[in-house]
Amino acid sequence: MQILKGAKDEGFETICICKKGRTKPYESFKVADKIIEVDDFSEYFKLEKELMDQKAIVIPHGSFVSYLGFENIQNIQAMHYGTKGIIEWESDRDMERKWLLDAGLKLPKIFDKPEDIDRTVIVKFHGADGGQGYFLANSPEEFYERMKESTSDKKYVLQEYIVGVPIYSHFFYSRLNNELEVMGFDKRYESNADSVGRIAAKDQVDAGIRTTYTVTGNIPIVLRESLLPQVFEMGQSVIDSSQKLADGGLFGPFCLEGILDPNLNFYTFEISARIVAGTNPYVNGSPYTWLRYNEPMSTGRRIARDIKEAIEKDELEKVLG
Amino acid sequence: MQILKGAKDEGFETICICKKGRTKPYESFKVADKIIEVDDFSEYFKLEKELMDQKAIVIPHGSFVSYLGFENIQNIQAMHYGTKGIIEWESDRDMERKWLLDAGLKLPKIFDKPEDIDRTVIVKFHGADGGQGYFLANSPEEFYERMKESTSDKKYVLQEYIVGVPIYSHFFYSRLNNELEVMGFDKRYESNADSVGRIAAKDQVDAGIRTTYTVTGNIPIVLRESLLPQVFEMGQSVIDSSQKLADGGLFGPFCLEGILDPNLNFYTFEISARIVAGTNPYVNGSPYTWLRYNEPMSTGRRIARDIKEAIEKDELEKVLG
Amino acid sequence: MQILKGAKDEGFETICICKKGRTKPYESFKVADKIIEVDDFSEYFKLEKELMDQKAIVIPHGSFVSYLGFENIQNIQAMHYGTKGIIEWESDRDMERKWLLDAGLKLPKIFDKPEDIDRTVIVKFHGADGGQGYFLANSPEEFYERMKESTSDKKYVLQEYIVGVPIYSHFFYSRLNNELEVMGFDKRYESNADSVGRIAAKDQVDAGIRTTYTVTGNIPIVLRESLLPQVFEMGQSVIDSSQKLADGGLFGPFCLEGILDPNLNFYTFEISARIVAGTNPYVNGSPYTWLRYNEPMSTGRRIARDIKEAIEKDELEKVLG
Repeated sequence: MQILKGAKDEGFETICICKKGRTKPYESFKVADKIIEVDDFSEYFKLEKELMDQKAIVIPHGSFVSYLGFENIQNIQAMHYGTKGIIEWESDRDMERKWLLDAGLKLPKIFDKPEDIDRTVIVKFHGADGGQGYFLANSPEEFYERMKESTSDKKYVLQEYIVGVPIYSHFFYSRLNNELEVMGFDKRYESNADSVGRIAAKDQVDAGIRTTYTVTGNIPIVLRESLLPQVFEMGQSVIDSSQKLADGGLFGPFCLEGILDPNLNFYTFEISARIVAGTNPYVNGSPYTWLRYNEPMSTGRRIARDIKEAIEKDELEKVLG
Repeated sequence: MQILKGAKDEGFETICICKKGRTKPYESFKVADKIIEVDDFSEYFKLEKELMDQKAIVIPHGSFVSYLGFENIQNIQAMHYGTKGIIEWESDRDMERKWLLDAGLKLPKIFDKPEDIDRTVIVKFHGADGGQGYFLANSPEEFYERMKESTSDKKYVLQEYIVGVPIYSHFFYSRLNNELEVMGFDKRYESNADSVGRIAAKDQVDAGIRTTYTVTGNIPIVLRESLLPQVFEMGQSVIDSSQKLADGGLFGPFCLEGILDPNLNFYTFEISARIVAGTNPYVNGSPYTWLRYNEPMSTGRRIARDIKEAIEKDELEKVLG
Repeated sequence: MQILKGAKDEGFETICICKKGRTKPYESFKVADKIIEVDDFSEYFKLEKELMDQKAIVIPHGSFVSYLGFENIQNIQAMHYGTKGIIEWESDRDMERKWLLDAGLKLPKIFDKPEDIDRTVIVKFHGADGGQGYFLANSPEEFYERMKESTSDKKYVLQEYIVGVPIYSHFFYSRLNNELEVMGFDKRYESNADSVGRIAAKDQVDAGIRTTYTVTGNIPIVLRESLLPQVFEMGQSVIDSSQKLADGGLFGPFCLEGILDPNLNFYTFEISARIVAGTNPYVNGSPYTWLRYNEPMSTGRRIARDIKEAIEKDELEKVLG
């Protein structure tokens, strides 16, 4: 919704593609000039001609990428904000890991097979399913036990569980001025992970409670200021590295999802090469964007500003990909 | 305080009724044009003539309702924002439950007697006492043990304890345009529930720590966007249902207090049919009100706007009750 | 950074003294008119002549005080915002405790020696090191065991661990109008303290996890409104008491760092007599400053406003010390 709101704030007209029966929020918040209802996002390609006739620019977000799949993203003919080629690199955990390692980031260890588990691991399933079904295991035995209970049949990854606080860092990189901006930080609000701690340890054990990681929302945070230089460096490395991976490289909004341990080491476990829900607390600007801009600058609006400036400079090709 | 600030922003003069010796915040934040100090809110009826002479409109909040009692609310002669008849429905747990069930919401199971406890339950005492004294029990034995330690002699309810994250959804419904708005979300900040998790499990057990639920404040959150259509539906059902319960039905600000479990089921355990403290993070607007309004719109200001528009349209009776 | 941003908003030019290679955030957020890079903050005194030539006013923050040491602060010749004499009182835990007790605040019990530990204590090391290395102990034995693992050789204090939620209260006191303002509240985001609760109790015990308290950021909160009168009183007592301790007393921004227990008792464990990072969520104003000011008022900007008003009234000496 901040994509739509931001576009309107920058003077664009907005079209929202939305599943049938789910239009209410867009109507109530008055952010869409036009709403197109679909049964399924796979209908996108039927709509594309209409979008192209209206000179629409597609702004991809997580659900859009997840529903369409990265292969179909490559077939988009309408104007598309951001580099399509980079989406494959964020969609596949092995490629993503290669990218982040190449950028010099610190990553949690990955175990090839369950038998190798020698510390606490988190078992994550492929695809942007909002963390649903993830679980912890301390040993091969515990892994197999919990897998039996699991309903997911997707590919999984066994990732070292870093004990530390989750921090999601939101960036924006423009190819118009080649500048990297820090847009803000958040932590996810996960069910039940962010509530099991509210139950006394004894009661947890009595009730046999285990942690799950379904994303339900986001909580705004600010980062310890002395860590900011490092955050800028991490963001820049990821951009530099991306330019070797896909023509055009990464630009626009992106997010590094990580853990900060008690020794202030940043472990990155994921990158999202697009706008993420963690910027939603900042519809009216974040503590960081208020430093740089004397107007409310959400990540959604920053995208629209990038496009607007590209049009003004006659460099629209620099924001499409 | 946002009620007073919001009223001033909409051009009203404000009167604050406040306990003796507690005026400092209202003075410092410059939100009250006039402060009336009372020894006890029961003095309200002595002041009523003065309020009526000044054409004051009473805006009820939680403490006001709690101190006065819903029976006395019915006797208010001054202009009163909101439907008085609905307050009884939120003040009595049995009536409240009937209302929410009628609205089709999912509710935690209620156990009639301690002997029926067959899972983790939370024991809640009647009245808006900010969660003080609530406790968990896993069995009839544990219930009786903790009741011996309890100092409360109020009626209690045995509610299934849903493991999931607490989310408080804030709404506003106006009878002028019959529109429902989502104003934002928060989670309560409870002592010690929101800090026991900061103690390692082993230390908790060593120190014999148990969870308590005293409300100390509120933390802003945003909700996973794909859940918004459901939230609008829940809010609308509650309004529709209320119209059968009390003449005029529910309007103005209200709050659904619930738990979102890992399968994204919303369990509602309470409704507040008035402005609540969970809207306080949003004195300058929430990420949601900034979508709809191009000005800072707190829930307090939204009330004042509703009254102002009613006066302008000569429909003041639509916001009084 | 909000100090620099706030100064610019009030029409001042800004100079930022910064360690070499760490200038990126100040450049990106465009808050510094001039950046002076140093190898170490001890070089401050070499720069002082230049600062004095430019009529700069030094605004001390936590890292500045920590790097320079309170003894060197006394030797600052340039104009310095705030009372230098009070910094010694916050820098030494024993003097700080004397101050807070004199102000009538409730403090956690202090144990003189490890053998006296008869409840859960938190072991804190002197100096503003962001909570790194703090640990819990339930007994003398546990204390000695964990001390063996500790890498810190600093003086420590054995403080009763109060079970309750951490709340940091931010104040501003101006000597121009002798008014105390509440600027907002936050909770720290600590690694791993704020994430161990995300791990189910059984898994914590299996993995042998212990709590650590490294500050990584801050989360905005609002306080239960009925507690505000008490918060104003606590702030005022601390100011009144400070006037006996150091000529000029405490003024400008300060922070009371405490725990609110389930019976709503405030335990204060520390005071910071300067701007702290906990005000960073409020670069664009807090829910409290938006009540009083009809413009975005961060704590950084409030400092600049104080200086500006002092200059206008020709009372600059009232904000220097």
